[in-house]
Amino acid sequence: MNDTRWSKTAKKKAREAFEKAYERECADLTDQIRAKAKAIREPSDIWNLHDFLMQKRKEVDDKYDYRYSMLDFVFARLIKEGWLSFQELEGIGDDNIVAEARVSTIV
Amino acid sequence: MNDTRWSKTAKKKAREAFEKAYERECADLTDQIRAKAKAIREPSDIWNLHDFLMQKRKEVDDKYDYRYSMLDFVFARLIKEGWLSFQELEGIGDDNIVAEARVSTIV
Repeated sequence: MNDTRWSKTAKKKAREAFEKAYERECADLTDQIRAKAKAIREPSDIWNLHDFLMQKRKEVDDKYDYRYSMLDFVFARLIKEGWLSFQELEGIGDDNIVAEARVSTIV
Repeated sequence: MNDTRWSKTAKKKAREAFEKAYERECADLTDQIRAKAKAIREPSDIWNLHDFLMQKRKEVDDKYDYRYSMLDFVFARLIKEGWLSFQELEGIGDDNIVAEARVSTIV
């Protein structure tokens, strides 16, 4: 896996898929935050929400790594977690992502 | 200011006032969190909410210091910020809190 594999079109599609997944995950996170905010009954619920956001921020920061050397693994994880479909990654490059994702979903 | 000034009754009243202020401030914070959660439109709003909670947690942790040597200052600040009234601190001890609060509100 290296940069030379990525055509201009593949880079454009990869960026779009990456951003789509990020938006979906953040929209889902927003729903979770709203539900937790609504359910606050005592001060400890506030600090639990803070802990939750701290953990999610780290998780999201680690996950959305847009280095071409990492994208196969990133996309495989996003497929495994349901943020992208195989179809949405068609035309992005070789079969590494699909192979990686299939292994991930089996594990 | 030292522990010897605090009678059993004064300690009980101080604890009640302290907890009342904490509950009020957390209830207000809950309202702010719900409003911010409702207003999330893009991912950066999520991370801004996390920053906000981090700052508030530190502020609240620092403020609610229940050492008898600190209580005059703590109560003075709570009065200044509107979380307690002078009336709610009646019978707690000497006039140090009132004096401290009056100075704080002038500054």
